[in-house]
Amino acid sequence: GKMPALKDLIRDIPDFPKPGIIFKDIAPLLQNPEAFRQAVDELVEKHRDHQIDAVVCVEARGFLLGAAVAYKLGAAIVPVRKPGKLPYKTYQATYQLEYGTDTLEIHQDAIAEGDRILVVDDVLATGGTVKAVTELVKRMKGEIVGIVFLIELTFLNGREKLQDYPMSALITF
Amino acid sequence: GKMPALKDLIRDIPDFPKPGIIFKDIAPLLQNPEAFRQAVDELVEKHRDHQIDAVVCVEARGFLLGAAVAYKLGAAIVPVRKPGKLPYKTYQATYQLEYGTDTLEIHQDAIAEGDRILVVDDVLATGGTVKAVTELVKRMKGEIVGIVFLIELTFLNGREKLQDYPMSALITF
Repeated sequence: GKMPALKDLIRDIPDFPKPGIIFKDIAPLLQNPEAFRQAVDELVEKHRDHQIDAVVCVEARGFLLGAAVAYKLGAAIVPVRKPGKLPYKTYQATYQLEYGTDTLEIHQDAIAEGDRILVVDDVLATGGTVKAVTELVKRMKGEIVGIVFLIELTFLNGREKLQDYPMSALITF
Repeated sequence: GKMPALKDLIRDIPDFPKPGIIFKDIAPLLQNPEAFRQAVDELVEKHRDHQIDAVVCVEARGFLLGAAVAYKLGAAIVPVRKPGKLPYKTYQATYQLEYGTDTLEIHQDAIAEGDRILVVDDVLATGGTVKAVTELVKRMKGEIVGIVFLIELTFLNGREKLQDYPMSALITF
């Protein structure tokens, strides 16, 4: 049969993770082999010839797209995680949430000076998470070649925080 | 230069996550593009012709291998997560730890009856986690075609819990 458009495979979950939030669930897309393949191929497309050394992605959903993108590009994969999860020496970045702050970590040996980096994540919301990732990469003197998202929630204006970098998303709401 | 053996890219971290444990850190392997590619290709190798419908993998490190394996096989990807992380209706499996229990969840619509499933995880230790995954897949009437690990810690005898299924690991300690 004909494959649904990628956007039609994103499921709205009302009141998750808390009342008033409509969560964009990417599971139906991941569960469709043709759609998963197409999404990864489209995420990679504009960076195929950019000699990407490493794909940096954020746990946990970001890993599901980032790992496949890294494999397709022949690049390394560098995970960014919540505090205490990475076992080796780390650098940390702390960023603002609506209430309070959150912190992310990266292994200190994960990126070398001049490495060409593609940042991959599932959803661009307010942009705080990926902005923190870009700070970590800059601190390690990696070169951010691009940032790609599966989904951009345009009404949250996260794009404004990432203006220093080429950025794109496959699906917008 | 010549690529190190996969096994030489696994780093021992003493006393992580707690005193007395030597943690096997797969980050150096993931950070080496050729090694990451080789590992994924070898994980896939024996199941290439087995018409795998979906790769089931456990957060968070399991996602890093499982997603690339799913992409390579042209399969769907089905994440298994800690409680409260999956937004849609879930089934749960609870399993025994050394002290206490742990619980995993899978989306109820993630596997259809008769789906051919490959389970992928980074490390086979006592086997409790992946045993719980097999219970979830069986409950949904999926057919487990195989279970593949990057690393098997043979001295923990996790293999005994998974005797009902074809199982293999690329690296043993």
